[in-house]
Amino acid sequence: MKQSLKQKIEGIAKQAQKASRALAVLPAQEKNKALVDMAAALLKNKAVILKANKKDLAGAAKLGKAFLDRLTLNPTRIKQMADSLLEVAKLKDPLGETLAAWKAPSGLKIKKVRCAIGVIAIIYESRPNVTSDCIGLCFKSGNSVILRGGSESLNSNLAIFNVLNAVIKKRGIIDGTINLIDTGERKAIDILLKLNNYIDLAMPRGGEELINKVVRFSRIPVIKHYKGICHVYVDEGADLNMAQRICFNAKVQRPGVCNAMESMLVHRDVAVRFLPGMLKQFKEAGVAIRGCPLTCKIAKWAKSATEKDYRTEYLDLILSVKVVDDLDEAVEHINNYGSHHSDSIVTDNSGNAKEFLKRVDSACVYVNASTRFTDGNQFGMGAEIGISTDKLHARGPMGLEELTTYKYMVFGLGQIRL
Amino acid sequence: MKQSLKQKIEGIAKQAQKASRALAVLPAQEKNKALVDMAAALLKNKAVILKANKKDLAGAAKLGKAFLDRLTLNPTRIKQMADSLLEVAKLKDPLGETLAAWKAPSGLKIKKVRCAIGVIAIIYESRPNVTSDCIGLCFKSGNSVILRGGSESLNSNLAIFNVLNAVIKKRGIIDGTINLIDTGERKAIDILLKLNNYIDLAMPRGGEELINKVVRFSRIPVIKHYKGICHVYVDEGADLNMAQRICFNAKVQRPGVCNAMESMLVHRDVAVRFLPGMLKQFKEAGVAIRGCPLTCKIAKWAKSATEKDYRTEYLDLILSVKVVDDLDEAVEHINNYGSHHSDSIVTDNSGNAKEFLKRVDSACVYVNASTRFTDGNQFGMGAEIGISTDKLHARGPMGLEELTTYKYMVFGLGQIRL
Repeated sequence: MKQSLKQKIEGIAKQAQKASRALAVLPAQEKNKALVDMAAALLKNKAVILKANKKDLAGAAKLGKAFLDRLTLNPTRIKQMADSLLEVAKLKDPLGETLAAWKAPSGLKIKKVRCAIGVIAIIYESRPNVTSDCIGLCFKSGNSVILRGGSESLNSNLAIFNVLNAVIKKRGIIDGTINLIDTGERKAIDILLKLNNYIDLAMPRGGEELINKVVRFSRIPVIKHYKGICHVYVDEGADLNMAQRICFNAKVQRPGVCNAMESMLVHRDVAVRFLPGMLKQFKEAGVAIRGCPLTCKIAKWAKSATEKDYRTEYLDLILSVKVVDDLDEAVEHINNYGSHHSDSIVTDNSGNAKEFLKRVDSACVYVNASTRFTDGNQFGMGAEIGISTDKLHARGPMGLEELTTYKYMVFGLGQIRL
Repeated sequence: MKQSLKQKIEGIAKQAQKASRALAVLPAQEKNKALVDMAAALLKNKAVILKANKKDLAGAAKLGKAFLDRLTLNPTRIKQMADSLLEVAKLKDPLGETLAAWKAPSGLKIKKVRCAIGVIAIIYESRPNVTSDCIGLCFKSGNSVILRGGSESLNSNLAIFNVLNAVIKKRGIIDGTINLIDTGERKAIDILLKLNNYIDLAMPRGGEELINKVVRFSRIPVIKHYKGICHVYVDEGADLNMAQRICFNAKVQRPGVCNAMESMLVHRDVAVRFLPGMLKQFKEAGVAIRGCPLTCKIAKWAKSATEKDYRTEYLDLILSVKVVDDLDEAVEHINNYGSHHSDSIVTDNSGNAKEFLKRVDSACVYVNASTRFTDGNQFGMGAEIGISTDKLHARGPMGLEELTTYKYMVFGLGQIRL
């Protein structure tokens, strides 16, 4: 008798939960050996993976250039995936760490200990390298993982998954430790998101539509890896040369990523000194400007910004620019239009810097630096699973520690409550 | 023109978000002064509050005894509410604490700093004292709060809210810092749970049905304060006198609370020595037993336990009892039937204790102590807003620190990404 999709996915989730309990207590050494083997297996099976990827690329030929670029694998990218697994193997095991310990008045000894979350479902765009990156990070942090990648990348994902799961089997690790939903049917996501009895955390990555859908349907706690509408605010107290360097870097160095600047705010008192040179440099670099009235007056070639512009993640050489009256207006604009990802102030006024840091409600707030540093590696966490734009559980770059929770271990000598 | 309920609740949430940004930077001293004033105001307005409570009690006269007990206010309970606010005033302000600080390879100085979450919605049962407890804890932790209590307690809640909000106004704190949905309409909850643009966290407390509803409908991240199906496992290596003391305490000392034992597991090798005396003591204390076959053989007066019994939070003098073959079976039973709240092992075997602590997937795991200690005060956190049975963000007793998140403050000297 053929299983329904619902039965199949529920079976996967149940087994993942069972596996998570074994994985949570698997020694670090065992996990690291498996990660090293996984890296080797990726390289050894390069041809099979590339063949599967060719099939995906043929099916997606009509899609955009950026889409195809994310979908494409080549020997260099497979090498990077393998290196990433080796890097994760080298990172410290986050589990079992005592986060705090104290003695309660009753004489009970209380230890707050880091432990795995359980089962994590990751729903992501058509980027096959994410398959192996997520498996590495979830495995090392002691969590079973259920992956659901974009349907256009199904053959590539399946090839990578099969190679890595063969290592799991070979090393005698329990079945269900890593899982891939091997159907492109969209219904699979709806089914997955209702399995809150088996899955502890859902992480959607990718487009706005997908993330909104997950938030709407999920009964599982969600951590969103949402868009980055990042700002640089050039304060009245800014070193304007530094400001120009930082803004140019934040916009142009890699415009397609979530920590790139999408909106530049400039204090009114420095606008006339700062904007002409800055906008000229942007123009020469091919950056289109959507500006406020004063910006458009200074740069005749700029287009007028709409409300929508200030809420848009361009991921491209486009920038919205607004002149603001003061720090207050800048902070309010960022809190209301931004995505609570990364925002920077350029200023030599330490009072203004302090206000900005305290009042801007974002995961990463910078003084005198480019927003482009929001990244697990740059932060010194090693590999990351993404940048959380949520405030609950984990915020900003999520490395291994952010993929854990804690429990209280309480040691008594027979204490009873009086 | 009359506002629709949706417009009204959306208006409250918007204003709460605005207020949260001011409250997040309000000095600790200002918050503490307001809390002290709130405590005084409760005592001063005792008569008004009691009068409103009388009205609620009259409307709820047909409901059960336990329900009415939770709904009833009296001078002693109002004094306790005031004392609780004074206690919260004395607790350390959790905001602004540096949780970690380091220098990245780029030379950037990174500080991980504790900050408020934003706007918290609390949906709770008809217990008027929760109104003032939640206001105190959310206010001190820098979060705006939107309260929605059980409709049977609306008059009491409104009276308490008005007294406390008058203090907010008088002290010049921004309107919207504390909020109460002043309608019993159930639709209000559905509306509230969709306002994820304004509300950062929803915390349901109370019955299973309410919590399931919140999980199903919420687009806001949820932390559940769910039922406690707590176990004590009497291991083969247990000091049986200690085991009897602990089990009796865990069940009988206060059976109506979430950290009371609902299920007792006993290792087969000690069952015949342990159960007769233990079950006799339970019988004398009026505890009804739902047992496995061996338990029922030892205590003829016990009823047979069904599958459902092992999943039931009795909150009463009823206990399910099961003899298990070994530690493995005990751990699996707890992970599969429990509610991940609090579970204890009684044993002198340190290896078994360690296994139990590592493998039981609950917020609080005990060795040789009663589960009744799971409580913010007993843990030394001071007042608590409840016991989280979730794994994400906060687990176990939630005090002030658990009502916060963090942000990364990054200090540069003009760094750009190369």
